[in-house]
Amino acid sequence: MSIVLYDLCGRDAERRFSPHCWKVRMSLAHKGLDFETRATPFTEIPKIGGGFSPTVPVIDDGGKLRRDSFDIALYLEDAYPDGPTLFAGEGGKAAARFVESWVQSTLGPVMMGLIVKDIHDQLGDADQAYFRQTREKRLGRTLEEAQAGREGRVDTFRSALQPLRMMLGHQPFIGGQQPLFCDYIVFGSLQWARVISPLKLLADDDPVALWFERCLDLHGGIGRAAVAA
Amino acid sequence: MSIVLYDLCGRDAERRFSPHCWKVRMSLAHKGLDFETRATPFTEIPKIGGGFSPTVPVIDDGGKLRRDSFDIALYLEDAYPDGPTLFAGEGGKAAARFVESWVQSTLGPVMMGLIVKDIHDQLGDADQAYFRQTREKRLGRTLEEAQAGREGRVDTFRSALQPLRMMLGHQPFIGGQQPLFCDYIVFGSLQWARVISPLKLLADDDPVALWFERCLDLHGGIGRAAVAA
Repeated sequence: MSIVLYDLCGRDAERRFSPHCWKVRMSLAHKGLDFETRATPFTEIPKIGGGFSPTVPVIDDGGKLRRDSFDIALYLEDAYPDGPTLFAGEGGKAAARFVESWVQSTLGPVMMGLIVKDIHDQLGDADQAYFRQTREKRLGRTLEEAQAGREGRVDTFRSALQPLRMMLGHQPFIGGQQPLFCDYIVFGSLQWARVISPLKLLADDDPVALWFERCLDLHGGIGRAAVAA
Repeated sequence: MSIVLYDLCGRDAERRFSPHCWKVRMSLAHKGLDFETRATPFTEIPKIGGGFSPTVPVIDDGGKLRRDSFDIALYLEDAYPDGPTLFAGEGGKAAARFVESWVQSTLGPVMMGLIVKDIHDQLGDADQAYFRQTREKRLGRTLEEAQAGREGRVDTFRSALQPLRMMLGHQPFIGGQQPLFCDYIVFGSLQWARVISPLKLLADDDPVALWFERCLDLHGGIGRAAVAA
């Protein structure tokens, strides 16, 4: 039986933009597991498993529900030890938390100000109302204000990627010679933007852009095949 | 026979401030290896092994010289597989490169502007001349100019540590439940400042400060025992 991934979607059910769901989707593919996705608008999340989780991703693995992208990756590593590893050992598992914290604290806030209105515009009506209310409260201003003047902040975003750019001088993936979950953590954020926004975030010759292109090609190109902006 | 670590020193030969040498010192202790340090001023580095390396750390392991802190850690992991691991697997090895790049690109430049004149002042005469010439060329201004107004930049430094701070909400070390080389990469930078400068960099209740205190206690407290500012 396939694993089911409840996957955030836009007005177009095929637009799958959640960075956290992408981490899981790539992880499922990495492990070579059969899975199907279930398009889930924000306002339908409470119906999953009778209110199992306030957020997606959620997976249903033969009746067992799991939530939170990092916890799901840990679960997959334990439950499917015969598939390719997502962490390559305990050190990789621990360091992936650092990569996650780096993305959340440095990339996330900058990116939100670059694409938050674009996200809104791709949502269905009920989700638009939910998204505007919750995000404007969190941001302390309107979505339009948050995204205004974004062109002037693209360089801030590019600068924030400098640790990754420098690392790519040593190796092709954060996981080393091959991608690991830590790559999918960062990939998820860039794919979030790619799927939802026409804004050009990276220069074509940026080593980070080249790494992202490599990630888009992984696992039969599931990242590249996604409906994008 | 003990491994010899050529270790950067100040005017006081017991003041060992190099962040990169501290990474190696902690790694040697972590592996449980016998080692001795050899106090090495900047201007004596070219004499090691007849010009073996332009920088320290350098180690001499029974006549085999090795240089570069990361390469030395990889060497120790391979050469001494029976000691506690420094990486806990290939994933940890790869991710340590990311941690290194994060420190170099985000913490290093900020810290230089906080302590560069203090470093100079702790060096011997010949090293002071060398250090001023090379660093002023690199910085494009005098050491005094680079460090001026540093109190106003402490908050920038603290903000730059946010990824580590956030990660510490999940686990006590970057390596997970136990420290690994990736911890020593960051520790080296904070110990650099502790040994060379009286500037208070962290609030006492900062989770990063608490992590640093844990690191100072490791391996018999070799970090805490060091001559400090």
